[in-house]
Amino acid sequence: MNARLVIRLQGSILLIEAAAMLPSLLIALIYGDGDAMAFVYTIALILAVALPMHFFARPKERNLRAREGFVAVALVWVLLSVFGALPFLFSGLFTRFEDAFFEAVSGFTTTGASVLNNFEGAPRGIMFWRSFTHWIGGMGVLVLTLALLPQMTGRTTHLARAESPGPSFSKVLPKMGDTAKMMYIIYGILTALEFILLVLVGRMSLYDAAIHAMGTAGTGGFSNYGSSVAAFDSVAVDTIVTIFMVVFGVNFALYYRLLIGDFKSFFRSEELHWYLGIILTSIVLVSVLIMPQYGNAFTALRYGSFQVSSIISTTGFVTADFDLWPTAARMILLLLMFIGSCAGSTAGGMKVVRVALMVKNTKREISRTFQPRKVQVVRFEGKGVEENMLSQVAVFIFGYIALAFLGGMVVALEGHYDMITNLTASITCVSNVGPGFGAVGPVCNFSEYGPFAKYVLSLLMLCGRLELFPILVLFHPGVWRKG
Amino acid sequence: MNARLVIRLQGSILLIEAAAMLPSLLIALIYGDGDAMAFVYTIALILAVALPMHFFARPKERNLRAREGFVAVALVWVLLSVFGALPFLFSGLFTRFEDAFFEAVSGFTTTGASVLNNFEGAPRGIMFWRSFTHWIGGMGVLVLTLALLPQMTGRTTHLARAESPGPSFSKVLPKMGDTAKMMYIIYGILTALEFILLVLVGRMSLYDAAIHAMGTAGTGGFSNYGSSVAAFDSVAVDTIVTIFMVVFGVNFALYYRLLIGDFKSFFRSEELHWYLGIILTSIVLVSVLIMPQYGNAFTALRYGSFQVSSIISTTGFVTADFDLWPTAARMILLLLMFIGSCAGSTAGGMKVVRVALMVKNTKREISRTFQPRKVQVVRFEGKGVEENMLSQVAVFIFGYIALAFLGGMVVALEGHYDMITNLTASITCVSNVGPGFGAVGPVCNFSEYGPFAKYVLSLLMLCGRLELFPILVLFHPGVWRKG
Repeated sequence: MNARLVIRLQGSILLIEAAAMLPSLLIALIYGDGDAMAFVYTIALILAVALPMHFFARPKERNLRAREGFVAVALVWVLLSVFGALPFLFSGLFTRFEDAFFEAVSGFTTTGASVLNNFEGAPRGIMFWRSFTHWIGGMGVLVLTLALLPQMTGRTTHLARAESPGPSFSKVLPKMGDTAKMMYIIYGILTALEFILLVLVGRMSLYDAAIHAMGTAGTGGFSNYGSSVAAFDSVAVDTIVTIFMVVFGVNFALYYRLLIGDFKSFFRSEELHWYLGIILTSIVLVSVLIMPQYGNAFTALRYGSFQVSSIISTTGFVTADFDLWPTAARMILLLLMFIGSCAGSTAGGMKVVRVALMVKNTKREISRTFQPRKVQVVRFEGKGVEENMLSQVAVFIFGYIALAFLGGMVVALEGHYDMITNLTASITCVSNVGPGFGAVGPVCNFSEYGPFAKYVLSLLMLCGRLELFPILVLFHPGVWRKG
Repeated sequence: MNARLVIRLQGSILLIEAAAMLPSLLIALIYGDGDAMAFVYTIALILAVALPMHFFARPKERNLRAREGFVAVALVWVLLSVFGALPFLFSGLFTRFEDAFFEAVSGFTTTGASVLNNFEGAPRGIMFWRSFTHWIGGMGVLVLTLALLPQMTGRTTHLARAESPGPSFSKVLPKMGDTAKMMYIIYGILTALEFILLVLVGRMSLYDAAIHAMGTAGTGGFSNYGSSVAAFDSVAVDTIVTIFMVVFGVNFALYYRLLIGDFKSFFRSEELHWYLGIILTSIVLVSVLIMPQYGNAFTALRYGSFQVSSIISTTGFVTADFDLWPTAARMILLLLMFIGSCAGSTAGGMKVVRVALMVKNTKREISRTFQPRKVQVVRFEGKGVEENMLSQVAVFIFGYIALAFLGGMVVALEGHYDMITNLTASITCVSNVGPGFGAVGPVCNFSEYGPFAKYVLSLLMLCGRLELFPILVLFHPGVWRKG
């Protein structure tokens, strides 16, 4: 194990985290809600821990093997959340560590599940930090590190690969560092665009607009209002947020294609077709199903399209209590929770490309049963897909569903809740969505769970954000074996 | 399409069904509950339809291609259920065809989900037929046909393969007909053994013992009491039924091994180890979880072991209202519903071998992430498993879960019930278990669903019993194409 490099990496990323707290500190100073010192203490603590890690751990070689990469990534995300939780504790927003940790993990993993009950009294610097974790976690902290310190990370492309969602990582530029920079530039432009549009509507303060733009961009879903986006009750706000939730669920490599004028690649993307197809179908079905409840087509479409986009993009913003919708409509949302958005986006879930590959693989298997001798290749994005990839995708989907189910079972051991609450709490955490059904539904939150369940759900959020394997390998004995 | 052979096969199997009604007719005559004519009419109708099919459809060749085999098998099961439903209608047990059909499909597929409310007034011949369908459906009607008419079915081994549960069909004897006969002999001996033991307990009449022996043997779960096996409230009955439910969930090829003195193969069977391991683990966990509810370990173990065995063997007998158990215990049962028992048994579910292969495949994929260059083969039953088989298993499990979920969504369109009811109704039907949770829980039944949902659930039971593909290929356009 190249322990020194792993330690040094942790140190560097913690330093980046400390730097990332500066905008929140600035907000705290501007508003003067009394939370500035929480950031000062945290930053001081991070510097005390991370500076020695960064400067004294001098790695002998600059390569990480695959398993070291996985361990490093998993560790980064845990440490990031531990230190990211401190401002919540120091400011008194939460008094228990498991609550602060849950909220930080939920932020960085862009889940948006919350244990916060008191929105009114919350200091604005802290609430800004809470949403800023979405923005950092959305594109990925290792991608950020690659963008800022490309020389530091050396030949460690599997670091970004471990963090970036989807079955394969698309390097849009020959150098990893340039790719990472490009991704963050596109990410920044899109976030700024949503921010400006939200401000122009005139229903949000600059602060509210920033919070909700970051929550959308990271497909996170934290709001500074207990009632989420419903607090604004504005068709224009709903429409803008709906569109941008869908936008941030698209593979960012496709936006790069648009940027360089390659419209053909963008519009021919098969994953994009599937993604938009699933969204449109779901919007139509859900809107028809909820129409009787709202009395008219426009309102049904407004709430239906918002909630479909919010769930499939794994954002989790809420404009209607969808737990009161008809069972069939809720089950469509439950299915979307599993599917999630495109690979290479800021969203969670199993990813559309995997679902599409699995559906195609299943269709092939069905036609194989009556044409056993015909060789049939699964094609995606115009190319034949290797059997190895299909097998990996199948295992991933199985592991994903199994983890969500077993997670729900473990959480149920606390004995608090019914099956739907525990199951959907687990699913919504693994998929980084936010709200579930029942006692973790759109108008409830996770605060009533005990410490045990909160730690389990935090682990599930991390598993989901890193797409299972980086966390699961930690539990595999082979990864700790020498040699 | 070799239509003549397909038609002739339907005719022969309907004739076997008519013959299979004779014991029920005899019971009806003995008890004189007024249901004898229902059988006479049905048998007459079958003869009128099936005799011409059997004698006038003269196939030119005696081979069936794979897709013809699938179509034939799917058709057989539908026709069998349609004609098997007639005694229920003619006797007045049900007044609506969808109810009679649902009950017949539930019987033949060994699901045991019921729409029957009036157990007290039900004529005994009809109730015997209801349970006899379990016994026929358990081992399979095509296997029965192969046993009785080996020369008729010609070189059509994929017929039995399409019907028999598990990823591969184990021919214990060189000839298919002899294999089928041997399976039915073992099946008969085990059923008789349970019947005798149940009679010896002294709490059941001969009639009751026969009903419950057939319900156990087919892992069906129909009882002639509304409260199922709880009606006898006997530790001895519970114990015998518990053991035999587990016994009928084992691959029958293993019993053949025992019969010829090959104990080694029996005790070394890896699938058997997994099966018993899952059962024991689940019994311990469930019993511990329900202990506070029952106050003592013995009662908890009694109900816990009965319900675990009943659910994993997909029988569905009930001795306790497990829907009142703690959420974690209910979730274990829900998981067992999916898993089911061994390949080559009379039980439903995904089958233990598939789950085991998928778990091993997942473990391999995890260790592959940090040892990408090491070639690793998944081993089962002491042999390396082909990648092709692993891929088929993965697709099957995905298709299975997707079908159960989508089935629940379609059933939810009726708008009657909550999510748990609709989801578990679909799962329990696909897995051929019987009871679910909520409004289809252990002390409820399926009678409140509308006709639409009843037909959908019937289709799901058939899909599950035939392990998806024979039914799914019917919806694939390629199968109806010429050539």
